Amino acid sequence: MSVVEVSSGIDGKAELDCPGEVPAGLIEAFDAYESALLANDVAVLDDLFAPGESTVRGDGTNLLIGHEAIAGFRSGRSVIPTRRVAKILVRPIAPGAALLMASTRNPATGATGLQSQLWQQIDGAWKVTAAHVSLPLKPASIDSTIWRVVGAPLVAPAENGPLDGKTVAVKDLFAIRHHTIGAGNPTWLNEQTPQEQHAPAIQNLLDAGAAITGIAHTDEFAYSLAGQNTHYGTPPNPAVPGAISGGSTSGPASAVALGQVTIGLGTDTAGSIRVPASYQGLVGLRTTHGCVSASGVHPLAPSFDTVGWLTRDAATSLQVADVLLPESTSSAAERTLVLPTVEALATPDVAAACAERRTELVAAGILPALHEADLPLAVLETWFAAFRTVQAHEAWQSDGAWIEAHPGALGPDVAGRFALAAQVTDDEAAAARAVLAEARRHLRELLDGAVLVLPSSAGGAPARDASPAQVESERAGTLRLTCLSGLAGAPALSLPLLRTADGRPAGLCLVGAPGTDRDLLQLAISGGLA
Amino acid sequence: MSVVEVSSGIDGKAELDCPGEVPAGLIEAFDAYESALLANDVAVLDDLFAPGESTVRGDGTNLLIGHEAIAGFRSGRSVIPTRRVAKILVRPIAPGAALLMASTRNPATGATGLQSQLWQQIDGAWKVTAAHVSLPLKPASIDSTIWRVVGAPLVAPAENGPLDGKTVAVKDLFAIRHHTIGAGNPTWLNEQTPQEQHAPAIQNLLDAGAAITGIAHTDEFAYSLAGQNTHYGTPPNPAVPGAISGGSTSGPASAVALGQVTIGLGTDTAGSIRVPASYQGLVGLRTTHGCVSASGVHPLAPSFDTVGWLTRDAATSLQVADVLLPESTSSAAERTLVLPTVEALATPDVAAACAERRTELVAAGILPALHEADLPLAVLETWFAAFRTVQAHEAWQSDGAWIEAHPGALGPDVAGRFALAAQVTDDEAAAARAVLAEARRHLRELLDGAVLVLPSSAGGAPARDASPAQVESERAGTLRLTCLSGLAGAPALSLPLLRTADGRPAGLCLVGAPGTDRDLLQLAISGGLA
Repeated sequence: MSVVEVSSGIDGKAELDCPGEVPAGLIEAFDAYESALLANDVAVLDDLFAPGESTVRGDGTNLLIGHEAIAGFRSGRSVIPTRRVAKILVRPIAPGAALLMASTRNPATGATGLQSQLWQQIDGAWKVTAAHVSLPLKPASIDSTIWRVVGAPLVAPAENGPLDGKTVAVKDLFAIRHHTIGAGNPTWLNEQTPQEQHAPAIQNLLDAGAAITGIAHTDEFAYSLAGQNTHYGTPPNPAVPGAISGGSTSGPASAVALGQVTIGLGTDTAGSIRVPASYQGLVGLRTTHGCVSASGVHPLAPSFDTVGWLTRDAATSLQVADVLLPESTSSAAERTLVLPTVEALATPDVAAACAERRTELVAAGILPALHEADLPLAVLETWFAAFRTVQAHEAWQSDGAWIEAHPGALGPDVAGRFALAAQVTDDEAAAARAVLAEARRHLRELLDGAVLVLPSSAGGAPARDASPAQVESERAGTLRLTCLSGLAGAPALSLPLLRTADGRPAGLCLVGAPGTDRDLLQLAISGGLA
Repeated sequence: MSVVEVSSGIDGKAELDCPGEVPAGLIEAFDAYESALLANDVAVLDDLFAPGESTVRGDGTNLLIGHEAIAGFRSGRSVIPTRRVAKILVRPIAPGAALLMASTRNPATGATGLQSQLWQQIDGAWKVTAAHVSLPLKPASIDSTIWRVVGAPLVAPAENGPLDGKTVAVKDLFAIRHHTIGAGNPTWLNEQTPQEQHAPAIQNLLDAGAAITGIAHTDEFAYSLAGQNTHYGTPPNPAVPGAISGGSTSGPASAVALGQVTIGLGTDTAGSIRVPASYQGLVGLRTTHGCVSASGVHPLAPSFDTVGWLTRDAATSLQVADVLLPESTSSAAERTLVLPTVEALATPDVAAACAERRTELVAAGILPALHEADLPLAVLETWFAAFRTVQAHEAWQSDGAWIEAHPGALGPDVAGRFALAAQVTDDEAAAARAVLAEARRHLRELLDGAVLVLPSSAGGAPARDASPAQVESERAGTLRLTCLSGLAGAPALSLPLLRTADGRPAGLCLVGAPGTDRDLLQLAISGGLA
């Protein structure tokens, strides 16, 4: 084996292995590519990949076909590899064609990788026509964007039961004996002492045979729908690489989506189960307000806080419901309730997908007959404003004293939300509560004997680097969709049945009358929906 | 994109993407390869790879060059993939040459993979001349063969200090506040209550700025050198894929070797730091007996138990020593002590590598002048027998009552060792202690002003599927090498300086007079040895 000088090599050198002559100019082209890669010079990288529809780039997760798709991926990539080329293998195939395989090493971590490139001469210039990349193995012990603590398991089941073999990622708001509650904020975490008792929801899961795998991240104090925790990062969204996870039950959702656990236990105040379910193609249940004890769970806004869970299928969700929820009290829905003014707040593609899917399900006899009701947007805005006011007022009651005592401890986004919450007066909150009572009465009337079907979120998961305006617009629409079940204290089940125009998953949400949680799951199961 | 029928596809089908005509016979050859892969038909797989020295197969970890190396890898592989081919991309390059990329999916887990193969016609038959495989991503939250519990971190530093930024994997024998001690046995673990205080060694590391990443596995009750825990599995040995990790500080060693932590904290009674260091190419220090408090550490045999640590370099090891150890009291060694009869118990390749390396280090002035001493094998055997007798007697005192109360709780290997330990009488132990006193006196005399240099283990890491006889033979030799520092109560530093004939790492061990722990590390650092 000889040594070749390449700027991307270790100390500027790499071992070279080639039977026979190395095609002229090939190493130079490879090194130009590598140098551009380490500099993230996207224009050079794009130029060195062959144009056209048959150029291909793959790794273990994604297979991109066509120069345009590859360039699009590259433009969205912000992490530049720090590995160096250790060895280059060249295998000439024919005049103007050679396979080049380069093994790489990260000098800091020792992690190794491999990339294979088919280089072909096009109009005399070497271009990559196919590439296969094995990224250096990530040596981390855990993905700390998802998890704060993981065990094998962290807490073993207390008994055998119907959840034998099931594993749970617990949102970092629940009391787990001998562990602290982190609430998504490291300054807070640092001041906590271990819990003496499990929260009842945790104890019930353990008694039913489930094991607690670990404690997974939440947005700070659960006061966000994005999953972008300033301190711990954004968990991966395996359904949409490069997109946010959704939150605030962000860590449990990613753990479920990645197959690391079967159940993600969380909370939903204004969408914190349904939004990550929607963004990641999962089944997410927000339960009827008050049906699952929120004791031992750090509160956000107790008037709306509910315990909920994420799973990959409805059958598992029902198994959890059988353990955590009382018997359903109601009979089956007779009407599929449609609120056209509300769902018009979703993005057009998601709204259309929702209407289309709903029509299909009614036609198939899975949903009962459609029933449109009029909810004027002005009324919705009044209700929503009252929801936000009471949520903010209660959130400040939950966490305000601590936040005031720890200036600078919160990330800017959540800090801003709490700063507004601090300004809500008791009088404003009292006035808003009167509106809430009216909204609840009205919505419960609409939901009596009905199942409301609407999108779980306004759109699909925004990109991690989406503009704040885009994220805020998505958030504003989503909150108006999700607040209805909060206002009604009603259960809401997000099912992975919709797609955005560009293929991202979005949830179809079934909202039932209070107490119909299991009916919603039964409907999803018997209809083969998830 | 069209669909092609292949037996390895999902439901017998895969999508096909090819600009132009697919070369005749290529898909058939690919499918023959895939079918053989799923059946682990090694003969067919070998035949479909091109013969000769330039055939290549790589993944993110290993790059194998030559048909023979690839066939050797294949014959040692026992796990057969269960994934199916979802999509096949064919890129014809020249007559008789095409790149084929196949994306795969595991129907059970959803995990995706990619394989690229350069197929070339040789004497009219399609053969793979180069292959690149991205294995399906492993969705586990943690590697449960290494870890019992992991956090990000599990315990934050108590103060800033010289170990700022360092992370520690703690062998599951040390008290960590609010956590239980597992001792490598799940039945035992299940009965433990959380510790109220950190072991002093843990507290000192936290006070010096280190963070505890997690609790890593030990062999059961630390009574083994293999790392093959019946209940939790065998941690990976990244230095020798397919080989055992060494133990009993097995989990911390693998965590250090993989770059998941900077420090592996463990114990060494009869080699439990030095053997995994030797097998995995790490720096491992067994400290002078009694110099680091073993309080809060589950005991095996207190007459020999020491606290020790594994790192990837000697400088980090010294940083830990500066925190955990008292000042060195002695002056530099004046002689390099050689015990030819003892090191003849190592395998011939390791013994030769040791002698050669030692001679080089003396010639380079890094080690002082050689001084051979005679330790008759009959004497060593007497000492070793006394060591084993007292170790067994104390081990039974440590754990015997619990083991008697829990029949069947231990794996067969460790159970057998404890069964023998149960039979050691008090009289036998007392007689052995008299021998130990004599051995200690004699060895300390030899070590006064000297550094003993010998192999850390008899050989390199045995394969996971090595025969019990092979493992036992390696173990028997190793114990006779490692017991000397135990007998003397002396520090021993294993440095990754040797190789077996087939390239596995093995440690070169420096044993100094009691109290010279840091002198050994300084010697390694100033000599540029690790």
